[in-house]
Amino acid sequence: MSEEVRGRRAMLQLIAASGAALALPRAAAAQAKSADPVRAFVEKNHDANVKRLQDWIRLPGIAAENRNMNEACAQMVELAREAGFADARRVETKGHPCVFGTMDVGAKQTLGVYFMYDVKQADPAEWSSPPFEAALVDKPGFGKVVMGRGATNQKGPESAFLAALRALKAVGRKPPVNLVLICEGEEEIGSPNFRDAVERPEVLAAFKRCSGVMLPMNCQNPAGGVSVNLGAKGIVELELVVSGEKWGRGPVQDVHSSQKAALDSPAWRLVQALQSLVSADGNDPAIDGWFENVKPLTARQKELVDIIVQRTPEAAALKNLGAKQWVRGLSYREAMERLVSQPTVNIEGLVSGYTGPGGKTILPGKAVAKLDLRLVPDMTFDEAVRKLKAHLAKRGFADVEVNVSGGYDPTQTDENSGLIRATQATYRKAGIEPTLNPRLAGSWPGYLFTSPPLSLPAGHFGLGHGSGAHAPDEYMVIESANPKVAGYDGAVMSYVDFLQQMAVVR
Amino acid sequence: MSEEVRGRRAMLQLIAASGAALALPRAAAAQAKSADPVRAFVEKNHDANVKRLQDWIRLPGIAAENRNMNEACAQMVELAREAGFADARRVETKGHPCVFGTMDVGAKQTLGVYFMYDVKQADPAEWSSPPFEAALVDKPGFGKVVMGRGATNQKGPESAFLAALRALKAVGRKPPVNLVLICEGEEEIGSPNFRDAVERPEVLAAFKRCSGVMLPMNCQNPAGGVSVNLGAKGIVELELVVSGEKWGRGPVQDVHSSQKAALDSPAWRLVQALQSLVSADGNDPAIDGWFENVKPLTARQKELVDIIVQRTPEAAALKNLGAKQWVRGLSYREAMERLVSQPTVNIEGLVSGYTGPGGKTILPGKAVAKLDLRLVPDMTFDEAVRKLKAHLAKRGFADVEVNVSGGYDPTQTDENSGLIRATQATYRKAGIEPTLNPRLAGSWPGYLFTSPPLSLPAGHFGLGHGSGAHAPDEYMVIESANPKVAGYDGAVMSYVDFLQQMAVVR
Repeated sequence: MSEEVRGRRAMLQLIAASGAALALPRAAAAQAKSADPVRAFVEKNHDANVKRLQDWIRLPGIAAENRNMNEACAQMVELAREAGFADARRVETKGHPCVFGTMDVGAKQTLGVYFMYDVKQADPAEWSSPPFEAALVDKPGFGKVVMGRGATNQKGPESAFLAALRALKAVGRKPPVNLVLICEGEEEIGSPNFRDAVERPEVLAAFKRCSGVMLPMNCQNPAGGVSVNLGAKGIVELELVVSGEKWGRGPVQDVHSSQKAALDSPAWRLVQALQSLVSADGNDPAIDGWFENVKPLTARQKELVDIIVQRTPEAAALKNLGAKQWVRGLSYREAMERLVSQPTVNIEGLVSGYTGPGGKTILPGKAVAKLDLRLVPDMTFDEAVRKLKAHLAKRGFADVEVNVSGGYDPTQTDENSGLIRATQATYRKAGIEPTLNPRLAGSWPGYLFTSPPLSLPAGHFGLGHGSGAHAPDEYMVIESANPKVAGYDGAVMSYVDFLQQMAVVR
Repeated sequence: MSEEVRGRRAMLQLIAASGAALALPRAAAAQAKSADPVRAFVEKNHDANVKRLQDWIRLPGIAAENRNMNEACAQMVELAREAGFADARRVETKGHPCVFGTMDVGAKQTLGVYFMYDVKQADPAEWSSPPFEAALVDKPGFGKVVMGRGATNQKGPESAFLAALRALKAVGRKPPVNLVLICEGEEEIGSPNFRDAVERPEVLAAFKRCSGVMLPMNCQNPAGGVSVNLGAKGIVELELVVSGEKWGRGPVQDVHSSQKAALDSPAWRLVQALQSLVSADGNDPAIDGWFENVKPLTARQKELVDIIVQRTPEAAALKNLGAKQWVRGLSYREAMERLVSQPTVNIEGLVSGYTGPGGKTILPGKAVAKLDLRLVPDMTFDEAVRKLKAHLAKRGFADVEVNVSGGYDPTQTDENSGLIRATQATYRKAGIEPTLNPRLAGSWPGYLFTSPPLSLPAGHFGLGHGSGAHAPDEYMVIESANPKVAGYDGAVMSYVDFLQQMAVVR
């Protein structure tokens, strides 16, 4: 799952009712139809473009299941070459391969593009239309959608970006910027080997020529509004495990619960270790030294929070989250500032002993808490893991296993960078005034681009709407019933426009 | 599941290596074969008796699944009538029915007998022999066993008791005591309606004539040893539930974990509520007023603990529990005293959010802790529930749901009661010196017999061995490979002997 996609979706939902989205200039677009050969080509090739997306969805590369990964990688190479990345090629990592390609058209600016070609698992039993059939389905209120795993996360918008490049080529136009493409195949398992690919000399050299990195995404919420994130929190995902085995106390396996009187309990030890990590109400991290490198928000970042709060009615924001009040009873403004500025220690899951219906009188031999720790600049993933372990060790919990499964540093991108200005300009051209978000509360592996040695602006872009990432019935809107929301062709055209903006900014 | 059975099994395992069991006087038994018409009948009818047990296992009444309960009740009535309870009949409760019957033979003493006719669920996929086929299987080291759900918990020993009565009848002997039989059909779901049956005037009147209540059980451990429990801890089984719904804070459903910065967390609140219930190391209850009615052990009870500790090597006791040391680093003697004397607050299970492999970045809308609270005299179930709720409310956790699913008061039975003396005498006659246990750390619904208005001695009795209650491959030994462990016929004869002892004690 793209952490970003999910985090972003949550944020988009927050502003779904904000009325920030304006109507797309449909009349102007219609007039342009005959005048703009690129648009004419895109519209003429609508069915072929959608078919190409459907074919892509029908060959799912699932890293978590080691399913079709060679075939999916070869398909990614082929799709990139068709779109004009003549040198597109497979790049090995310690895990599943990446795909790397460049398109040097002699332009002044170079844009980096990040793709993922893997998708999340899908259980067909949960879907109303089979996840790997990519059927076109009528979705009331939305229009005609393509339904399938990867439809929006991330094949749909990626295919629209590639379709934009093919359209330019077809009408004999060079892209207005040079392009560098890197596609990873392990995004859904936490990008454990993506660094291998980015740090290859030829890849690093290519990205060093870029003025920013863009990930294609269906950025419109159901009302058509768009939010532009100027960074993202980092994350550490981990399990804390207390076991009789490692602890040397309590049972190594589940025993009858009557033995609690005579034996220590790993589950109680987990509770004790957990509660040392946070403030008494569970809302602030209390890990030693956790805030040492936390940068306070700037005046501009606080101003952006003000705007978010003004644009999004509080009641709608709470309703979207299924909540009646904000953390610790704070005001909406205070909660939104925490959302962009505060590191968190969150319990994703608790698992110990008997978890079925009713009870079972056992003293469990093991207890697990699944945690995610969100990091803000200038915290780092390595620092967080080190401090968590030191905190536990200092309190006598050295036996508590800290099993880190993945994570990233936070990212930050300058509002005044060319990438962000091009993003805003393209949305405005489409009649949408985007909301600037100082920092996404979710996370994505963009730190490889935003941190040294590259230190590039990085962000998401794209018109279009989809939902259901990591869930059943994932979809992307193909023919939109809402004039404020772009369909597939509108998404394709948004990338054509974005490349143009990237060529002229700065 | 019989709480008792499981708790007892844990205790039996503790003394499995104790060498307390002596060889059964096989030569004497063989000599008696022709001399004793009851034994001769039992041996002649071995196959028919085992077949009757197999047929019983093949019709599982499973209260938790509301499966076959009418048929299972009718079968229980039939089995009781065949054994001589001519008036055996179905007795309605608010839940599944009980079966009640009496056998008045004009004897001086009357023995109450407690049966359960329901069994625990079973997943055939986990069994090496189908749970409801009751196949006869060779079990290396044990001999020929009947394998099936209910084989030892509790149809096996119950069927042996009934076979003893049928044998007496067949050879024209009256039982040496009058009998009162109550059979419940909801033991495995916590006996929620058993009180309904016991408090019926005709049932209460019949039990008032009893000098004790016995539950047939395969009391021998694999080495042949037997422990006699002089009471049992009480229990409260419950779930503590924190939900955004009830709390009015945090999300009502799972939301993206990035929202932790802006929302309260039910999982963290559960952690905070939990840790208020116990001492810092999780080993002593810290619920307000919890120890007010806890009776200290008597000198005799402490002496019995000394004997248990002397008879059972510490290393074997720890090994059987899969533990390396006792609670809080205490000595073996201290831990064993805690086992019989201390109330506990145990975590049976923790469930919140994502519980599968790996992680999932959610902020769960709900968190559940499954607890069992073991009670010692003179604590009561009602008192414990009341104090737990008051404790939580006083600390601002009034919204934390306390969902009690079942439980019992503790029981206590006098070492000098006729029931216990008859139990000991019967074991000794079989060449076994039983270990007296001041109190079972597990629980069973015997309080309905041991508390007013009945205030009777109550306990378990029976030779024979079985295991696997609530687990796959449950079995009872039919033909024992170990001369120290009774087979099915030996179990039947132990009940014949026990009735005789009950008639002559006191």
